[in-house]
Amino acid sequence: MSEQNLIVESESKKLDVIEKVLPRVDAFEKVTGASIYVNDIDMNRLLFGKALRSEHAHAKITRIDTSEAERLPGVLAVVTGKDFPVRGGEAIRDQPFLAIDRVRYVGEPVAAVAAESKKIAEKALTLIKIEYEKLPAVFDALQSMKPDAPLIHEHMANYPHIAVLNLVKNTNICNYVQQSKGDIEKGFAESDHVFEDTFTTHMISHTPLEPHSAIVRVDLDGTITIWDSTAEPHRLRKDVADSLEIPLTKVRVIVPYIGGSFGVKAGMKAESIAIALAMKIRGRPIKLVYDRDEVFEATATRHPSVTTIKTGVKKDGTIVARQMKIVYDTGAYAEKGPTVCLRGVLAGAGPYNIPHVKIEGYCVYTNNPVAGAFRGYGTPQPVWAYESQMDIIAKKLNLDPLDIRLKNALDEGDINPIGQVVHGVGLKECLRKAAEGVQWYRHKDRDTGRGIACSVKSTKTPSSSAAFISVEQDGSITVLTSTTEMGQGSKTVLTKIVAEELGLPVEKVKISYPDTDNTPYDSSTSSSRSTYHMGNAVRLAAEDVKRQLKELASKILRVPAEKLEVKGGTVHVKGSPEPQLSIPQLIGQAYAGGSIVGRGNYYSSDIGKHRGLHSDPPAYWMYGAQAAEVHVDKETGQIDVLRIAAAHDVGKAIDTVCCEQQIEGGVAQGVGYALLEEMTLSDGKILNANLHDYKIPTSLDVPKTMPIIVEAPIKEGPFGAKGIGELPTAPTAPAIANAVCDAIGVRIKNLPLTPENVLKAIEEEKRSS
Amino acid sequence: MSEQNLIVESESKKLDVIEKVLPRVDAFEKVTGASIYVNDIDMNRLLFGKALRSEHAHAKITRIDTSEAERLPGVLAVVTGKDFPVRGGEAIRDQPFLAIDRVRYVGEPVAAVAAESKKIAEKALTLIKIEYEKLPAVFDALQSMKPDAPLIHEHMANYPHIAVLNLVKNTNICNYVQQSKGDIEKGFAESDHVFEDTFTTHMISHTPLEPHSAIVRVDLDGTITIWDSTAEPHRLRKDVADSLEIPLTKVRVIVPYIGGSFGVKAGMKAESIAIALAMKIRGRPIKLVYDRDEVFEATATRHPSVTTIKTGVKKDGTIVARQMKIVYDTGAYAEKGPTVCLRGVLAGAGPYNIPHVKIEGYCVYTNNPVAGAFRGYGTPQPVWAYESQMDIIAKKLNLDPLDIRLKNALDEGDINPIGQVVHGVGLKECLRKAAEGVQWYRHKDRDTGRGIACSVKSTKTPSSSAAFISVEQDGSITVLTSTTEMGQGSKTVLTKIVAEELGLPVEKVKISYPDTDNTPYDSSTSSSRSTYHMGNAVRLAAEDVKRQLKELASKILRVPAEKLEVKGGTVHVKGSPEPQLSIPQLIGQAYAGGSIVGRGNYYSSDIGKHRGLHSDPPAYWMYGAQAAEVHVDKETGQIDVLRIAAAHDVGKAIDTVCCEQQIEGGVAQGVGYALLEEMTLSDGKILNANLHDYKIPTSLDVPKTMPIIVEAPIKEGPFGAKGIGELPTAPTAPAIANAVCDAIGVRIKNLPLTPENVLKAIEEEKRSS
Repeated sequence: MSEQNLIVESESKKLDVIEKVLPRVDAFEKVTGASIYVNDIDMNRLLFGKALRSEHAHAKITRIDTSEAERLPGVLAVVTGKDFPVRGGEAIRDQPFLAIDRVRYVGEPVAAVAAESKKIAEKALTLIKIEYEKLPAVFDALQSMKPDAPLIHEHMANYPHIAVLNLVKNTNICNYVQQSKGDIEKGFAESDHVFEDTFTTHMISHTPLEPHSAIVRVDLDGTITIWDSTAEPHRLRKDVADSLEIPLTKVRVIVPYIGGSFGVKAGMKAESIAIALAMKIRGRPIKLVYDRDEVFEATATRHPSVTTIKTGVKKDGTIVARQMKIVYDTGAYAEKGPTVCLRGVLAGAGPYNIPHVKIEGYCVYTNNPVAGAFRGYGTPQPVWAYESQMDIIAKKLNLDPLDIRLKNALDEGDINPIGQVVHGVGLKECLRKAAEGVQWYRHKDRDTGRGIACSVKSTKTPSSSAAFISVEQDGSITVLTSTTEMGQGSKTVLTKIVAEELGLPVEKVKISYPDTDNTPYDSSTSSSRSTYHMGNAVRLAAEDVKRQLKELASKILRVPAEKLEVKGGTVHVKGSPEPQLSIPQLIGQAYAGGSIVGRGNYYSSDIGKHRGLHSDPPAYWMYGAQAAEVHVDKETGQIDVLRIAAAHDVGKAIDTVCCEQQIEGGVAQGVGYALLEEMTLSDGKILNANLHDYKIPTSLDVPKTMPIIVEAPIKEGPFGAKGIGELPTAPTAPAIANAVCDAIGVRIKNLPLTPENVLKAIEEEKRSS
Repeated sequence: MSEQNLIVESESKKLDVIEKVLPRVDAFEKVTGASIYVNDIDMNRLLFGKALRSEHAHAKITRIDTSEAERLPGVLAVVTGKDFPVRGGEAIRDQPFLAIDRVRYVGEPVAAVAAESKKIAEKALTLIKIEYEKLPAVFDALQSMKPDAPLIHEHMANYPHIAVLNLVKNTNICNYVQQSKGDIEKGFAESDHVFEDTFTTHMISHTPLEPHSAIVRVDLDGTITIWDSTAEPHRLRKDVADSLEIPLTKVRVIVPYIGGSFGVKAGMKAESIAIALAMKIRGRPIKLVYDRDEVFEATATRHPSVTTIKTGVKKDGTIVARQMKIVYDTGAYAEKGPTVCLRGVLAGAGPYNIPHVKIEGYCVYTNNPVAGAFRGYGTPQPVWAYESQMDIIAKKLNLDPLDIRLKNALDEGDINPIGQVVHGVGLKECLRKAAEGVQWYRHKDRDTGRGIACSVKSTKTPSSSAAFISVEQDGSITVLTSTTEMGQGSKTVLTKIVAEELGLPVEKVKISYPDTDNTPYDSSTSSSRSTYHMGNAVRLAAEDVKRQLKELASKILRVPAEKLEVKGGTVHVKGSPEPQLSIPQLIGQAYAGGSIVGRGNYYSSDIGKHRGLHSDPPAYWMYGAQAAEVHVDKETGQIDVLRIAAAHDVGKAIDTVCCEQQIEGGVAQGVGYALLEEMTLSDGKILNANLHDYKIPTSLDVPKTMPIIVEAPIKEGPFGAKGIGELPTAPTAPAIANAVCDAIGVRIKNLPLTPENVLKAIEEEKRSS
């Protein structure tokens, strides 16, 4: 048990609700099939939308003829980028709702149809005639950075964009990020050994169960209502309002349950097409649900990457200097790429004490499908590099991979690679527990190996979350929050925080679904931020309620408010059960019925001291370690993952089951990334844009997983909690690769670890040795 | 100008938004037909409900056979009171959702059907066989009070009811209210003259344009969602939850625009029938929209009444004592009758200085249609009595009707008939302005007369309203409130209060529609309470926002918060335009985006000092006076109202146009009450339950009306405002009757003033003289 844990345990009181294992609050709805998703919503006079998409990776549109499609009975509207030349984009406003004069990737929407049925819409698309003039295309980020590469966005510098970006004019680099600490050259000079390696990662798809879905209605007065599967309702509202240059309150986003996001249910995707159609046909709602091939082609991918990593170490394995260059292929449009690159660079050096650091990140346009946020937001790529290289170093120095990590690992009060003093660091405990979980030191069978990898990620900072709470006269609680429930368990976590804070059973608490007309601002359900940020917002709103309950009770009981406490649904004198007032009695006596209303607003930075996304110190960092045990069939190249122990520091588990589910889900996705999944392309066209050819792990493919919760609480978190969502997917691939190397002595630097790649590596190893 | 006005004018600063004449915020939606009412809402798999109603006024149900109806194709459910024996009722839980074993009025729902179409539902009703055993019935409240009257609710004393009621056991009296001040016998002994008269009022219908409408869906987990035309969303939620004994948060009430209420869109009407059906067919929404005959038969009426009034006066017209007995016929179920009776008694003595007062009110069950709240809530009945008698007294003492009223009228600081010191009393100004409006002292033609009448009403107290406000990062404002917009202009009024408080143009402010899952508690949109109560709640929420804006700006500008002010969408140093921060700049700099959230909770009584509905001093009283000029055709008995001047004290007009519209609408309804409208019954069956036979004033029937706004601000009101909704309908009838008496010397004591009644009165006058 770390010192950190000891400190907190002595401070902490018993948590009646949080420490209880309860069914998820959404369990009943989910298992009975009663939970509603966008596609379940039917409406009066609903129309169906569908987009016609580019077959070229880069081409000029020379002619579009939609007249025949318009004449098809049942077609209400056909729209093209010419009719509706509007662009959106969170970081850079570079992406047309529908291609305006050029297409930049295969699958880019060029025209769209709204019709009385999806069938009619699909038929109408076949009647649209488009002529293209092909342009030279580029599909490789390193090629795309060269001076002679075709420029994908000639007017990039003129697009509106967020202030923090460094766009490199007249290139395809839409963000260049640099992060330094110490003196990198001095660091290498002081090192005993310097290692330099290049690692690559591949393109994968999020494959959420629910495809992207939107229903859009534009009223006569121009108000836009969107029922949407977005994880970021307030950001979508802002994106739409900014794109159309209308006030925020003219856009309403309503989000029912979401069937998985992993980062891809963000930014405008189906929405922009449906909006373009709905602006033409006011008053009628238009539903647009992506088919699976559209989810592959036209939503977002995880950025393929090339990382060069140069690390200087002392003989004993102490890291002295690390230099990295990470190139992210962001595809045809920037989407969240520029900030994915930023967050990747911030966490890029790993969770280690390193005096001299220089990390450079490049976010590069290509004519590939658009890349975006994907669980980890730019960190899985450098984790693959630095945790693979760590084992190369250990092997060279003849050190145990666990020991070299423990030697360099960050601990409470250390200064991390971006120069921030860190608190609440459960990393060493994660490393030890993960190793224990696979019996690290136990005898290994032939062709069997064990590997370990750890990782770190910060939450985006600054960001804010707000919440309202009503306490009804019968003691039931309504919580208004814009956090989306996409399977991760936010409803359960927020319910437990409110119930704990007000001393009530969870059954009394009802969490709203997000509706930007009603539920107040939340930055996003992303960046593993909801438990911490929205958790703090609902906690502050509950405190506001408690303050009022105590003030009211003080007048009735004639006891000073500061001597009162709220617990178990009653207000009573601290330390004495009598006199007491139940919440219904209190509201009845004080207000003759009515309610108590509270509000909370949490902001994760010093107010008024915002220094930009780059320089704001992250509110917290998440740490985790995973150990894998594998057997490799050297004949077939087949890797059999025998077990994975995944230990993650959650600060404080608000709900252990939800935390374990996040870890298990993360590992499953990590296994898919490491072994199975890969989008294969030819001239920018995806060859396996379906779930038959694109392999995600089935329940039979997921190895035996041991989720381990480590708690190194942080002071600012609700009851000490931080996030857990993203990190469990990041260390899996290097842990497996390190285990493979341990088993058969072969180092693979390019993901995925398919049998073909394993065999190729064995072959190369043989050749070089 | 009264002293009161002078005081306030010196205090008041210029109100930039409130004093501007602007279009109603709902004007665009209303005139384009875009505004949505419940009947406009269509849904997937919507069913249609319809009730079978009793043809008997009082009978036992001996047999119901629904089997044939159940077999009709397209019928999904048939429900009776036996299947679903649940009762509701705001004051007394006496009213079955569907008659259980007995019917008590013609039109009471006995069974209901849900079907794929309204046509099928109607057909199915004809297939239900019911056998009754008739019981003796009573249709007159005075008869019903007699010991030998049939008991309508034998188990009345066992029904759950609100604490404030005095149910008289083993009678039909479901509330007896007494209000005394001074010594009534002493008062009469000290009087020079004592007048005793009896006045009656008749049964009328509210006839809102939109009939009662509800869509109810019960989810698998028992959550009930109701899209409803109720004026009281939170009270409906509570009624449903209490009836079904479930938590408040299991019921959700959503209210779009309402097409008029006047008190009748309250309590469960169509809702209870739709709920009974929806509980049987979970998951499918059921729509139930009343036909016009159902609105007449089975919603609520204005209580018919008999008022005996005994008044002792000095020779100079000074009122010394007043005793009244008001009997309200509440029909077969209590509904809001018991509190209608209470409010009627509280205001029953009129707006006068009277040392000795005794008022008794009886709320009496009969087998008539159910009576309920109707604009004025029990006051139009005593106003008819005391303002008619005032002219009898004036005539006898040879005093001018205006002078005798001014002599006795309440003024600032006086003690009213319930013993409360009153403030903000614009009554005398109302009397003078109304008289001026019809040129009171000018020569009159033959058979032409002028009459004046004034009245007073309190708002229900205690009651509470809560609101949330979000300030978005672009400076737009979202206000969450449960106040319903039913034509009265609440959206406009609340918009202006928020805009004024935050110093923003009205275009920036968006008012929500009520949705009990999102918009916090409001007692009701009734009792002329919204401008004052919800106005205060949104004002407090805006103050909460302002406090936060100043705190944030204080940190950025490095100026103490108390030196800052929020105005014109900016925060700046008081009295100096620089330095300043616009709200978007502030939210951007302080929070890097996000929002500011505020909450307000207004309660109209001393917290913790609630002494019950009866004894809580009303938060404010409303005063008004109307003068009418009429010509009477003595041959036909036809009254021609030439003009009406209606002066009403609104405290402070938040929107002069909305105030004037309320006055004009009230007068129109008052004219209908006085001259045209009357529900005629035979054995409890309404003979004119349609808009062909039941006459409401058309635009051609409404006389020339001069609305006059008087402002005697009250300290606690938002910007000094109080209510205006109810009062303008009350003085019209006695003003007209007094003018008729002035014109042709005939006193009519029984409403309505139809030609038949006028001729009869002329005949009687001739006989008695």
